[in-house]
Amino acid sequence: MTQTLILIQCQDAVGLVANVSNVLAKHKLNIVTMREFVDIEHGKFFLRVECTGNVEESNGLYSHLKAVLPPNAEIKINPSHKKRLAILVTKEHHCLADILVRHYFNTLNGEVCAVIGNYDNLRDFTERFDIPFFHISHENKSKEEFEQEISLKLREVAPDYIVLAKFMRILSPKFVSEFENRIINIHHSFLPAFIGANPYKQAHDRGVKIIGATAHFVTNDLDEGPIIVQSTKNIDHSYDVQKMRRAGQEIEKAVLVRAIQLITEDRVMLNGNKTIIFKA
Amino acid sequence: MTQTLILIQCQDAVGLVANVSNVLAKHKLNIVTMREFVDIEHGKFFLRVECTGNVEESNGLYSHLKAVLPPNAEIKINPSHKKRLAILVTKEHHCLADILVRHYFNTLNGEVCAVIGNYDNLRDFTERFDIPFFHISHENKSKEEFEQEISLKLREVAPDYIVLAKFMRILSPKFVSEFENRIINIHHSFLPAFIGANPYKQAHDRGVKIIGATAHFVTNDLDEGPIIVQSTKNIDHSYDVQKMRRAGQEIEKAVLVRAIQLITEDRVMLNGNKTIIFKA
Amino acid sequence: MTQTLILIQCQDAVGLVANVSNVLAKHKLNIVTMREFVDIEHGKFFLRVECTGNVEESNGLYSHLKAVLPPNAEIKINPSHKKRLAILVTKEHHCLADILVRHYFNTLNGEVCAVIGNYDNLRDFTERFDIPFFHISHENKSKEEFEQEISLKLREVAPDYIVLAKFMRILSPKFVSEFENRIINIHHSFLPAFIGANPYKQAHDRGVKIIGATAHFVTNDLDEGPIIVQSTKNIDHSYDVQKMRRAGQEIEKAVLVRAIQLITEDRVMLNGNKTIIFKA
Amino acid sequence: MTQTLILIQCQDAVGLVANVSNVLAKHKLNIVTMREFVDIEHGKFFLRVECTGNVEESNGLYSHLKAVLPPNAEIKINPSHKKRLAILVTKEHHCLADILVRHYFNTLNGEVCAVIGNYDNLRDFTERFDIPFFHISHENKSKEEFEQEISLKLREVAPDYIVLAKFMRILSPKFVSEFENRIINIHHSFLPAFIGANPYKQAHDRGVKIIGATAHFVTNDLDEGPIIVQSTKNIDHSYDVQKMRRAGQEIEKAVLVRAIQLITEDRVMLNGNKTIIFKA
Repeated sequence: MTQTLILIQCQDAVGLVANVSNVLAKHKLNIVTMREFVDIEHGKFFLRVECTGNVEESNGLYSHLKAVLPPNAEIKINPSHKKRLAILVTKEHHCLADILVRHYFNTLNGEVCAVIGNYDNLRDFTERFDIPFFHISHENKSKEEFEQEISLKLREVAPDYIVLAKFMRILSPKFVSEFENRIINIHHSFLPAFIGANPYKQAHDRGVKIIGATAHFVTNDLDEGPIIVQSTKNIDHSYDVQKMRRAGQEIEKAVLVRAIQLITEDRVMLNGNKTIIFKA
Repeated sequence: MTQTLILIQCQDAVGLVANVSNVLAKHKLNIVTMREFVDIEHGKFFLRVECTGNVEESNGLYSHLKAVLPPNAEIKINPSHKKRLAILVTKEHHCLADILVRHYFNTLNGEVCAVIGNYDNLRDFTERFDIPFFHISHENKSKEEFEQEISLKLREVAPDYIVLAKFMRILSPKFVSEFENRIINIHHSFLPAFIGANPYKQAHDRGVKIIGATAHFVTNDLDEGPIIVQSTKNIDHSYDVQKMRRAGQEIEKAVLVRAIQLITEDRVMLNGNKTIIFKA
Repeated sequence: MTQTLILIQCQDAVGLVANVSNVLAKHKLNIVTMREFVDIEHGKFFLRVECTGNVEESNGLYSHLKAVLPPNAEIKINPSHKKRLAILVTKEHHCLADILVRHYFNTLNGEVCAVIGNYDNLRDFTERFDIPFFHISHENKSKEEFEQEISLKLREVAPDYIVLAKFMRILSPKFVSEFENRIINIHHSFLPAFIGANPYKQAHDRGVKIIGATAHFVTNDLDEGPIIVQSTKNIDHSYDVQKMRRAGQEIEKAVLVRAIQLITEDRVMLNGNKTIIFKA
Repeated sequence: MTQTLILIQCQDAVGLVANVSNVLAKHKLNIVTMREFVDIEHGKFFLRVECTGNVEESNGLYSHLKAVLPPNAEIKINPSHKKRLAILVTKEHHCLADILVRHYFNTLNGEVCAVIGNYDNLRDFTERFDIPFFHISHENKSKEEFEQEISLKLREVAPDYIVLAKFMRILSPKFVSEFENRIINIHHSFLPAFIGANPYKQAHDRGVKIIGATAHFVTNDLDEGPIIVQSTKNIDHSYDVQKMRRAGQEIEKAVLVRAIQLITEDRVMLNGNKTIIFKA
């Protein structure tokens, strides 16, 4: 039987779950899982419903839902096609490799359409998986020129999401706004600790007993965008910066790939500068 | 506004969520959180709904729900009074102490009505919290006599649940059946590994790299009842049995108190020999 | 057989382990565990040795060790008497309760000599364990007067360490310097994130997916002292500030009591603004 | 400066650390890290020392160590060349892929010399990394014939260790004894729970709240060999067998690759049916 996915985001009100589930029942859609969240502080309602039954034959589902929801409700029906992903990298391989392996074995609910590197060293690995690799160097270019080249290439490959898989250049507001809410970054610290450059160096200097990583949407405030996934690992005094980095890379790739999975399965909804995550 | 809790367990069918949420809407009960689970393999439906609105004024809520659900549906409305708990102990203090401290500070959604020990050594600690302690020794008694004494005392204090907080005597089928689905045990291993006596000794002999604990309902099959909570901790070769025990005690008390919280908040539903846990 | 503990901290040099183990062998002390750390960056050597054999009969052990170590080496032999602890609290009970329960059951390698609260609400609980509780209010006093009263009381009870078990007043440099390297605080965030007041509020506003706690030595830089223990827990969007606080309290008490255990077992050595922890 | 690694395993005695560190000092080898373990129950001593200084010029180091140790002491000096690994697989890719990616990027302290599959489906992936893949089917063969073919191939590629990366055939005692203490398996449960076939099915039937994986040396007792690494993950009632398997695969590959790292860095010593692991 066909699976249908419905995402709703609107102002909170009494009876919303009843209203929606009524409409679904009338369209002979059987609810498999229904997850909701009410942001009481801001009076906002979020809903994710998976149901069985053919939505194609459900003429007017969108307008029937619209009719029982508050004005300005955002409704998405079946957004869950295979998302196209462009991966931006610098020199480190661990996040990219994890993504490409999952892509090769079809365990990623997404289509990697291109890898763009400001260095060329990950070309060989990428091409072993028959994924196009584009080397766009930042050298001898203004940030604007550099970003224009990337932007041009991105428009060509037309990704749904841009994944910064240890891409070590800070993006300009102009670039970020072109791909608003569509750029995902992995930061190698448990944000908001150690914002900015060299977080493992910062962590070592501070003598912390945990390290971590954070996958987040990119906004114009450096490392301040909505957090999607975070994870940490205990360390001790014997970890120098290099050992932190190696241990951290395991966390980074796990966190980033988890964020990609959540996004490609339409489990992430934005709520201001926060995320609502409806886990499987 | 009053909070209402509804638990439903029945055969699965199309439109159950819609049916229930309709009835709630008609009774002017606004859904705050709704969590459902469908056991597809056995065709069973489980629902937990928290709503606001006064159910007292909702005449006929039970029968209106009954009317839209499959035959033999189990419906519980507002079961969530403060549960009465009787704690059975032997000599070890760590689980009992954690429970009594939370009870003293009112962070446990339950009322400890009695502590029964087959040794007397935890009396002083228990009585410091003004909780009645009853010493019922197993010595020089048949198992039947011993259990009759406990049973008599339990009928007197009338608990909703009996918590075996490191009670080291195996209970007979007769005793277990008298308090069916109401006895919670903490076993000091990650079941089904190391069933029976001396799990840390067994774990040490096997050379495992993790230890753990399991809170479960007690049935007549030793250590085979429905599991509620489990947790583990990494260890290494330097752990002798004594060090395992000490480290394990931290897990045991955390796991048991978590199980008690889940049960007293009516978040645990039985599904054959398994549990459905609707976490907060 | 008697257990002897030796702690050494000095400039790094070739052959230090050999030198020390030779001296121990000559004194017929048999090494049970030897843990060392070399801070290569700063050329510093740290050693913790547990050995069997009677050090009392080992005339001259200190001077023999001194003779084979670089100048200015710090040597501690058998520092591990039961440490005296004074606990400072405000209103929250969870850390205090965990400490007092362990103290009652003799599982803490320390002696709680006093609890001092700037509110009186934890008196009843404390006195149930026959521990003296002193109410020293901060109200209608200058910080100086307030701290002088505490300081007076502390000199009277003469603790080895002062544990801030959710003591919510910031201490002055003068007070801190009086008890240098002897004040342990629990901060309710994974430092250096969310320094200062209301870390759970800050965490909620930022939309983090982890919360945590940090036990650290108190220095004059707020929340910047050497970190002893940190731990985190995954959360999601459903955690409001209150739920974060409740979940956080479980981490806080585990982290603080772990730090106390490490300190009372002489497993913590200071290395500038960092700690070396020789775990069991 | 050259790094030297020394592993010692012998009967316990007084002064062993002193004896060894003396010999090292005389050979002008400076101890960087020294980790020891005494199995008190069985009177056995284990030591792992990393030191700097050129052992090549240290004529007689072995015999000098031998002279200060109990009879029958096992001494290994600089065993840590790059280990050759042969990987045996069936159909599942996740463990193999993780190993090959690390191998490609030189982050594995080992040399993958061959992949042998009893199915052919992982050939394409393996060959993308220029690693030879050998398809040795078990079909229409006796177990003896099948194992002889594998054994022949293994003798040809001459691995130090054989890694069963989800190889789903049970090996005969004859085969196991040919490669004694050199075969590493990943079992997809937290052993000793769910020994044998279909552990996720077993776990689902039992209703456990954790799943896990175990890397262990293979002996003739199925799933009973010395455990190297174990890890677990919390699950809930919503996990069907398929979802357990997917979640489990993440644990399996992490656990197996961790075991390989420990072994290739000579951090694992056998102690009867247990392992001593000297972590970095």
